[in-house]
Amino acid sequence: MDSDSDGVHEQLEVIFDQSAAQRRRASLNPGTSNRPSSQRQKTSCFVHQLLEEKSKSGQWTPSTDILSDRTADKETPEDQRNGDETQRHTQSRLLTKKQLSDMAFGIRELSKKLGHIRLLLKVRNVFLLTKAHDQKLIANTRDMTQYLLKNTNEEGQPYVVWVEETMRDNAVFNAKGLLDHDPSYKDRLRYWTNELCAKKPHTFEICIALGGDGTVLYASWLFQRVVPPVMSFALGSLGFLTKFDFDNYPHILTRAFRDGVTVSLRLRFEATVMRARPRSQNENGSGNEGDYRDLIDEIIGESSDDSTTHHPLVSHNILNDIVLDREPNATMSSIEIFGDEEHFTTVQADGVCVATPTGSTAYNLAAGGSLCHPENPVILVTAIAPHTLSFRPIILPDTIVLRMGVPYDARASCWASFDGKERTELTPGDYVTVSASRFPFPSVLPLDRRNQKQSKKT
Amino acid sequence: MDSDSDGVHEQLEVIFDQSAAQRRRASLNPGTSNRPSSQRQKTSCFVHQLLEEKSKSGQWTPSTDILSDRTADKETPEDQRNGDETQRHTQSRLLTKKQLSDMAFGIRELSKKLGHIRLLLKVRNVFLLTKAHDQKLIANTRDMTQYLLKNTNEEGQPYVVWVEETMRDNAVFNAKGLLDHDPSYKDRLRYWTNELCAKKPHTFEICIALGGDGTVLYASWLFQRVVPPVMSFALGSLGFLTKFDFDNYPHILTRAFRDGVTVSLRLRFEATVMRARPRSQNENGSGNEGDYRDLIDEIIGESSDDSTTHHPLVSHNILNDIVLDREPNATMSSIEIFGDEEHFTTVQADGVCVATPTGSTAYNLAAGGSLCHPENPVILVTAIAPHTLSFRPIILPDTIVLRMGVPYDARASCWASFDGKERTELTPGDYVTVSASRFPFPSVLPLDRRNQKQSKKT
Amino acid sequence: MDSDSDGVHEQLEVIFDQSAAQRRRASLNPGTSNRPSSQRQKTSCFVHQLLEEKSKSGQWTPSTDILSDRTADKETPEDQRNGDETQRHTQSRLLTKKQLSDMAFGIRELSKKLGHIRLLLKVRNVFLLTKAHDQKLIANTRDMTQYLLKNTNEEGQPYVVWVEETMRDNAVFNAKGLLDHDPSYKDRLRYWTNELCAKKPHTFEICIALGGDGTVLYASWLFQRVVPPVMSFALGSLGFLTKFDFDNYPHILTRAFRDGVTVSLRLRFEATVMRARPRSQNENGSGNEGDYRDLIDEIIGESSDDSTTHHPLVSHNILNDIVLDREPNATMSSIEIFGDEEHFTTVQADGVCVATPTGSTAYNLAAGGSLCHPENPVILVTAIAPHTLSFRPIILPDTIVLRMGVPYDARASCWASFDGKERTELTPGDYVTVSASRFPFPSVLPLDRRNQKQSKKT
Amino acid sequence: MDSDSDGVHEQLEVIFDQSAAQRRRASLNPGTSNRPSSQRQKTSCFVHQLLEEKSKSGQWTPSTDILSDRTADKETPEDQRNGDETQRHTQSRLLTKKQLSDMAFGIRELSKKLGHIRLLLKVRNVFLLTKAHDQKLIANTRDMTQYLLKNTNEEGQPYVVWVEETMRDNAVFNAKGLLDHDPSYKDRLRYWTNELCAKKPHTFEICIALGGDGTVLYASWLFQRVVPPVMSFALGSLGFLTKFDFDNYPHILTRAFRDGVTVSLRLRFEATVMRARPRSQNENGSGNEGDYRDLIDEIIGESSDDSTTHHPLVSHNILNDIVLDREPNATMSSIEIFGDEEHFTTVQADGVCVATPTGSTAYNLAAGGSLCHPENPVILVTAIAPHTLSFRPIILPDTIVLRMGVPYDARASCWASFDGKERTELTPGDYVTVSASRFPFPSVLPLDRRNQKQSKKT
Repeated sequence: MDSDSDGVHEQLEVIFDQSAAQRRRASLNPGTSNRPSSQRQKTSCFVHQLLEEKSKSGQWTPSTDILSDRTADKETPEDQRNGDETQRHTQSRLLTKKQLSDMAFGIRELSKKLGHIRLLLKVRNVFLLTKAHDQKLIANTRDMTQYLLKNTNEEGQPYVVWVEETMRDNAVFNAKGLLDHDPSYKDRLRYWTNELCAKKPHTFEICIALGGDGTVLYASWLFQRVVPPVMSFALGSLGFLTKFDFDNYPHILTRAFRDGVTVSLRLRFEATVMRARPRSQNENGSGNEGDYRDLIDEIIGESSDDSTTHHPLVSHNILNDIVLDREPNATMSSIEIFGDEEHFTTVQADGVCVATPTGSTAYNLAAGGSLCHPENPVILVTAIAPHTLSFRPIILPDTIVLRMGVPYDARASCWASFDGKERTELTPGDYVTVSASRFPFPSVLPLDRRNQKQSKKT
Repeated sequence: MDSDSDGVHEQLEVIFDQSAAQRRRASLNPGTSNRPSSQRQKTSCFVHQLLEEKSKSGQWTPSTDILSDRTADKETPEDQRNGDETQRHTQSRLLTKKQLSDMAFGIRELSKKLGHIRLLLKVRNVFLLTKAHDQKLIANTRDMTQYLLKNTNEEGQPYVVWVEETMRDNAVFNAKGLLDHDPSYKDRLRYWTNELCAKKPHTFEICIALGGDGTVLYASWLFQRVVPPVMSFALGSLGFLTKFDFDNYPHILTRAFRDGVTVSLRLRFEATVMRARPRSQNENGSGNEGDYRDLIDEIIGESSDDSTTHHPLVSHNILNDIVLDREPNATMSSIEIFGDEEHFTTVQADGVCVATPTGSTAYNLAAGGSLCHPENPVILVTAIAPHTLSFRPIILPDTIVLRMGVPYDARASCWASFDGKERTELTPGDYVTVSASRFPFPSVLPLDRRNQKQSKKT
Repeated sequence: MDSDSDGVHEQLEVIFDQSAAQRRRASLNPGTSNRPSSQRQKTSCFVHQLLEEKSKSGQWTPSTDILSDRTADKETPEDQRNGDETQRHTQSRLLTKKQLSDMAFGIRELSKKLGHIRLLLKVRNVFLLTKAHDQKLIANTRDMTQYLLKNTNEEGQPYVVWVEETMRDNAVFNAKGLLDHDPSYKDRLRYWTNELCAKKPHTFEICIALGGDGTVLYASWLFQRVVPPVMSFALGSLGFLTKFDFDNYPHILTRAFRDGVTVSLRLRFEATVMRARPRSQNENGSGNEGDYRDLIDEIIGESSDDSTTHHPLVSHNILNDIVLDREPNATMSSIEIFGDEEHFTTVQADGVCVATPTGSTAYNLAAGGSLCHPENPVILVTAIAPHTLSFRPIILPDTIVLRMGVPYDARASCWASFDGKERTELTPGDYVTVSASRFPFPSVLPLDRRNQKQSKKT
Repeated sequence: MDSDSDGVHEQLEVIFDQSAAQRRRASLNPGTSNRPSSQRQKTSCFVHQLLEEKSKSGQWTPSTDILSDRTADKETPEDQRNGDETQRHTQSRLLTKKQLSDMAFGIRELSKKLGHIRLLLKVRNVFLLTKAHDQKLIANTRDMTQYLLKNTNEEGQPYVVWVEETMRDNAVFNAKGLLDHDPSYKDRLRYWTNELCAKKPHTFEICIALGGDGTVLYASWLFQRVVPPVMSFALGSLGFLTKFDFDNYPHILTRAFRDGVTVSLRLRFEATVMRARPRSQNENGSGNEGDYRDLIDEIIGESSDDSTTHHPLVSHNILNDIVLDREPNATMSSIEIFGDEEHFTTVQADGVCVATPTGSTAYNLAAGGSLCHPENPVILVTAIAPHTLSFRPIILPDTIVLRMGVPYDARASCWASFDGKERTELTPGDYVTVSASRFPFPSVLPLDRRNQKQSKKT
């Protein structure tokens, strides 16, 4: 930021605000020191290529995090031992305000660029995703598999098609029938597992999701970090996330793979459940007073250091929303909401919905939130049936770390769910952090959206 | 953007999307060609200094616009003749999507920087603003005037205090009493006029607004283009825009002028009323068919060229909101809403409120909109008492040009107002454009906001 | 109510609450003394017949009011002189709490009865109503006129058809063509005027409204007191008030006139504008203090007697809603709301909508009110864009007298409209009273609604 | 209703609508036949005395139900055996439309009367209710107990004070201390049990509730049928249901017992859980087709007879609301809503809240419902976070039987709760009926409410 001071002349001095550089509380981890940043290899993904350059130019410190993920492709023994993948990179909630802000800015800038760029994907490995219990969709998946296996890409190379492990013996999918038809398919029809998605997301140049917005959320769930560009097909009416009509898929795929696609980077949130540590006996002796704990003080108080009071339980990257709701038997929940180092409010409500712009059309809307353009870099916080009648939905910048906790003196637990899954109890004293994820979700748009629209009208 | 293509490797090609560079319809003006960009002088304003550098670096094409304003300081005869100030720079509604997006991005980035920087203002000329009809506030204004005239800045220079022209003979303000007290004040007590604000905004290092959020809006109205940093004092409870307590003003001013301030750049909108031109007889012969006009087609149709159908009537830079509402006698209004080249929807409602993040706490909230953090780069569109029950408030990016018009076949006019003023009739066929203004509103924040908060708690 | 005290035994005494019988303030009129209650004649209307009996049984004091209307049929010279029709009966706002409550109860009970009863209307005079500017509807009206003139009722009598005066020379209606076709129509095709509706509503056994909910509101406007049963036909989709499909009208009318109809009595409100009298000089001497007036005190204060402070300007019976809204130029309105002798609240809002259950689906819904079953005996009060965020729509019993006024110190006037018409300025100090009207609106329902529904399903 | 037909004259015939008298479906019970209606004794309760007269006059058929409750005082062996108290009277859901309407009307009329009457209660037995786990409230209860034991009523009789069984050994309440102080208290300090409340509600002339709205709900829960007049005291701020200030209780009780009270009859709802019977093998053979069941058809279909498809599980009389909500793990619930024999709508939402006017200020308000005056005879139906954005709260008359069910093909159960208690699972096919209860809740109001208000102002 030195360059800015060039602008200073006799009337003016610039003094850096120290507090901005200060590390946030809630920073448990030793941080960036022990991350493996050296053994990079050339990425196959344009999106992450761009991110990497950004980081090299120094605009976006701890930018190496995203690369460390790719080292997972090497499957070192260490990786295999390390079950807690989410601890391998510095989570966004642990960044300083400035780092988080830079990261968010980097992604916004990238999104802006991508909006103007046509990407040629050079597809070789196609990842196919559908609802594994919907017979009709499985039949459609088989159609598309067969179509892809029959065809080649622009450079004459045959496609490798990856379907879910469960398709191997699925009667409707009938893999054997495919192979019987053409034994050469054998090498090119492969099966993915959840683990492969987690470990080697770069294997796939594209992910094709069949079957509605739910399937797109499933893709986001599978690819918790780097996500291949996702092209979503709907049967029947298009949804908010499903942009292509299945009826037309051969034509659509041909054009997309040949002419390129536009990718919209959808903001995801990284959400981490922070569990309250039991208070140690030793620390406090046996005083009664020592039993009293105040969540607000532990989170933003003067001497707060949440590594002693809380530990991270689990993290999720989500595309739609994090919902906290009341214990079923409770009348309502009481939730403390914090933005960065400020205590915003205490909400008495059925719950709170924290939505991405992408999720604004889902539960957020039912709870009374606003419709949000997917490009807005915002966090939408909406209370569900708030007892405080004047409570209104709040729009926050994606450079904020949001924390929502259950006060220690709450009568009941809350429950957190992440894109409608992974329901987790928050007992009194626990909280959830929400911040912009460094792993956005690349959603493939029709290239000629604008022309299509206009042609519709004529 | 060339540098990005470095990221391209064998698997990938980048092709620029031509449509992004395409000039928007609604571009009447010859544009950037005849703007006076050469005779720049050093700016006295840090904020605009930074903006200037941005433009020099080429990141923000037609960045010279903002400079042309400063040439107003020279008061060339040409300027004096030129009554229509708003036509002197390219209005933001006329920018291409890319230009608008770059401009918005530039301001966002600047805002981000300012959030971390302490500014030393080196104040010499203080602009004082209050409600000219409130006796108590005038008395307060006199207090502050006297205080400033008595004191000097850090470098020992006396202040020049500017008050409204009407104070010259105001009994409560009693200018004569001040001068009688100390004749040396004579040169340093000056009177501003609306014209001076419009022409020479750089005269003032700081604007001090006394008396509530309304006075802040008044400052925004006075300074339609470049705005000096505005420091707002409230008597009694602080408002959303009034950040300082008058009771403490000597201490607050001393610290602010000595230690510096933090400035938050508030997004303003540029709103232009576009009046439908009467259909020329010549063009259409005398066919009955020629009488039929379709607003949607004129705005975004294939062959639309709104210079032949509409002309700009008047432009305003607003800080809170543009409100369109129904003719008093009408049951409701029918308003067409467009975002860039898309027709979003037709709203049947009492009206529509388009708010900045700053304005989110005003009428927007009453109409059912969300609370919005002032840093979010968004446009809030909220219908007032919509007859379509499923209509929900919409959050749009500030890189969009919004247009709202009255269909030609509407039974009644609409009325537009701008920050609650300048009420203008929109007859059928007219529309209003709203886009991010290149002239944000610099609001002075307490330097140590965070520490203050924490100290309150202890 | 004496009979109740029979229920009293040794443990219990009943003491009547004196305050209930106390006359309300706001009672200007000498009241029931000079109403002509003797010269009754047999009513031709079942509905009013029932109401009359109720009154005879003493349950519903000043029940004679409704009858006095019928005396209008006699057209005494006095009536003709008396322009201010609304003063001829005691308005419901002037009733005591007990009287109003009894009246409301009487109408509720009647409604309940009518819900179970099939009415044979013995139609002779048919009142036809449509939109006088809609060519298509006029053509439809002519169709129906011709159909009715051609046919006879169950007892073989020909129908008399009444159309609007303006149809006499309407080209589309072509009255001359009808008469040319059959000269005997001459006596049976008649023309109604607004005055006839006001003076002799009993002339018509049925009113047929063609053309949507607006036409039904028009019927309510025309028949300000006694309303003939209204049968409403829609073209195209049925509305909330239009219950019959025009396409089928010959069959529908035949069945309705032969087999009878069900009538639903829709609650109407009586709304009166009360204008503040200028304060007399004599009363208050010339003290400055005397200039200060407090609306709340004048309406419900200890010594309030609004005959000295306000006078009634005009009254309306409305079917949908009374809307108060802000002066177009004002930011918002400030409205004091009173229920009986209580000051409920001061609303800061764009306005207030007071809706009948029938009107609940109109503006009330847009303003955020609830859907209300038409049989509920309630008053729906909903603020439009309230600045007090916790303000919620209110449901009041129809036995309350609601008053809404503009405080004397308001900066701007409000405007009241009645079923969307009769827009009237309320200057500071004025108020509007709303109470259940003694003249409900009899809406004809399909006789076999229930069976129709079920048959749809099979 | 014979008398009404007097109103019929030559133009008119009245034919009773047969369908109104038709018994509703959902009528399982043999009904009124075996109810013990003869052995009445004089009631000790004015309210029920009035109800009894209403029934004698024939206006309100099966009016004897309410009396049969009083026979419980006799504790016949049969009663003791009969655990299922709720089956002893005909439940309101089983009434015909006309019966239900008559009953609702009877209660409305009674409420109206009570609003004008001062009741002298001649209190002998005082029922004291508080939160059994709140030490402070128990201390207050002891105070009041002591006060009452010390004093006598107007006729010089000492009071009998009933406290909860658990007070017998409660240290704070310290019953022993009381008796030590005055052994004569022994006979007059008694202990109530839930069973006593259920069986002999007439034992108590008054119920005094200490401690907020929750305690009032507890009173309603205890007295499921006849409820003694409830006088509620709050500590600190008064609630919606707590009308008296504890600080003043000796004065308030003295005046209330001496001068009388006003009683407001609050509408309660009777809610019954209807469990789907498993489809019998015999009926349907073993066809696959037989497995398909349609809830809408079973409830309102042509041949529906729900005694074969459903059986009543449990009934509750509730004062605030019945809430149906989604299974915690489910995204949302799908609920079918029926009013009488009509299918209103299918709601996709988090749940549905059905509130009494009394409950309108509780959960209903949080869910977006309206404030409702307690005297309105209405049912408030409000969806919680409805996915159908145009869904609006609905106000229904209390003469309707509402049914809400979980469709057979729903993916998840719903859960019903009654005044926040008695949470019950509704598996697919189950439904809940809601209708006006014949056992309203008599709430004691301050006698001179109006005067108090006015005096506050002076």
